[in-house]
Amino acid sequence: MTTIYDSIIIGASAAGISAAIYLKRQGLNFLIITKDIGGEMALSGIVENYPGFPKTTGLELAQKFEEHLKSYGIEPIFDEVIQLKKEDKFFEVITKSENKYNSKTIVVATGSTPKKLNIPGEINFFHKGVSYCSVCDMPLFKGKTVAIIGGGNSALEAGIMASNICKKGYIINKNPSFKGDKILIEEVLKKPNIEIIYNALTQEIFGDSVVKGLRYLDKTTNEIKELNVDGIFIHIGLKPNTEFIPNEWEIKNEFGEIIVNKFCETNLPGLFAAGDVTDFPHKQIGVAVGQGISAGLGVVNYLNKNK
Amino acid sequence: MTTIYDSIIIGASAAGISAAIYLKRQGLNFLIITKDIGGEMALSGIVENYPGFPKTTGLELAQKFEEHLKSYGIEPIFDEVIQLKKEDKFFEVITKSENKYNSKTIVVATGSTPKKLNIPGEINFFHKGVSYCSVCDMPLFKGKTVAIIGGGNSALEAGIMASNICKKGYIINKNPSFKGDKILIEEVLKKPNIEIIYNALTQEIFGDSVVKGLRYLDKTTNEIKELNVDGIFIHIGLKPNTEFIPNEWEIKNEFGEIIVNKFCETNLPGLFAAGDVTDFPHKQIGVAVGQGISAGLGVVNYLNKNK
Repeated sequence: MTTIYDSIIIGASAAGISAAIYLKRQGLNFLIITKDIGGEMALSGIVENYPGFPKTTGLELAQKFEEHLKSYGIEPIFDEVIQLKKEDKFFEVITKSENKYNSKTIVVATGSTPKKLNIPGEINFFHKGVSYCSVCDMPLFKGKTVAIIGGGNSALEAGIMASNICKKGYIINKNPSFKGDKILIEEVLKKPNIEIIYNALTQEIFGDSVVKGLRYLDKTTNEIKELNVDGIFIHIGLKPNTEFIPNEWEIKNEFGEIIVNKFCETNLPGLFAAGDVTDFPHKQIGVAVGQGISAGLGVVNYLNKNK
Repeated sequence: MTTIYDSIIIGASAAGISAAIYLKRQGLNFLIITKDIGGEMALSGIVENYPGFPKTTGLELAQKFEEHLKSYGIEPIFDEVIQLKKEDKFFEVITKSENKYNSKTIVVATGSTPKKLNIPGEINFFHKGVSYCSVCDMPLFKGKTVAIIGGGNSALEAGIMASNICKKGYIINKNPSFKGDKILIEEVLKKPNIEIIYNALTQEIFGDSVVKGLRYLDKTTNEIKELNVDGIFIHIGLKPNTEFIPNEWEIKNEFGEIIVNKFCETNLPGLFAAGDVTDFPHKQIGVAVGQGISAGLGVVNYLNKNK
């Protein structure tokens, strides 16, 4: 007979692990299926904003979370979910290694991946001046000069942040205008220490042991230009890991993020989502933890009310 | 000239400290006004469900949070807020020691206090078998016998939890019926290891170094009866610390909790709330952290858009 689990958590970074701790403590019969432990968190550099840990690294924090999981004897299944189905009352989870699992509820906590420029230097200087998270890393560049690459709200917000924290900031926009909120654009344009460079395609990041600058193509003049900066923030979008969720369920927004309410419920009963994979704007470890816990306790309530 | 702060955070437990860390990192000019550090968290016993800390105590965790705050050089003002006003664009915060502060935004993170039975033994056996948080502490009573005191949803949920975790659970209800959700009542009534005692007024908690049991008045027979239990969970309501918020702002629910959306915004622009003081059902440290961060980043966005 097929086991029908109470829940299957997909993903084992901050949100998935938090949900798992709560489900285990409630005595539920569940699985975690994940590609890795720690996801994007494990790739973060210095972390100074997860409350309780004044200064750590993403990797250390991921290890602490893993230790917490193991303290409950929880062993994830290392596999990739490639398809989710709903059959009558139960979900079916299909993995890359061709296993199938059935469950009454699902917690999607697969995170999202920042989009890359795919230019020379980008990977080499990651954590050596290159960052995909301004909220996390801008404070490391206090009084220094940074470049922000992008043209949407995240880039604009990073620009405002840089104006308050850094000596000087450039926003490098490949287009002739911004596509973000008007109010944010106006605010950025008012900042005396923020310079906007339009029609600029970033081509290369250079440095020695750390970032020293970048080169971009000025599309107006067709010249290659150079900027000396200490930090480079790349804000050209996030790719949520939600390909395995059928579009016809209509629980994803235009960016592929899963739309959740404040209880981390989706519009599909029994399906919960938490962390960076959701439409929640703040992609932060502490927020993912709170959402993971909410999703876990949401699963408990759902099971109590649907027996 | 009066300083107008970017923000004033009221309270310095999990939510307030999390908000403060984020505001500081964004270079904002803000205050924390609080009665104490750690609030209810500091009074919690063993904590095994704040991700990253497999096993700690509420007090230790409160100290870690305080250390985190101090690593940023943030010094709270120890005072009690007794009144909030909104004058034109700014908030005015009035304290017990008759100080007044002005701010563009407010983060309310004053927590809530579990209601007490006020019976002999209740205070003496707190953390020695008496708990006000089933989600936190029920797992400590695995395979044991517990009593749950209350008649609403929290007591019913604790009963279902006990049925999964403990050998035996009693629910002691002072009324002849439950006032919780019908579906939860039905679920509890189905549990073979949960016994309901109606019309029962708990009178005394007894034990030696730990709880051994309780005595209650059976209102039907007018007899004093005794139950031997290892743990006692008191779920007779929470009192959110929101007296200083004017009722005419209409941001509180019937229980006095502050109603927030998923971004921790209230209906009053510029006023945010986070943690146990909100209408969010899960009163958990990790959830308060996530909400504190959301409120902090919400303040940043609000200030960017309202200059």
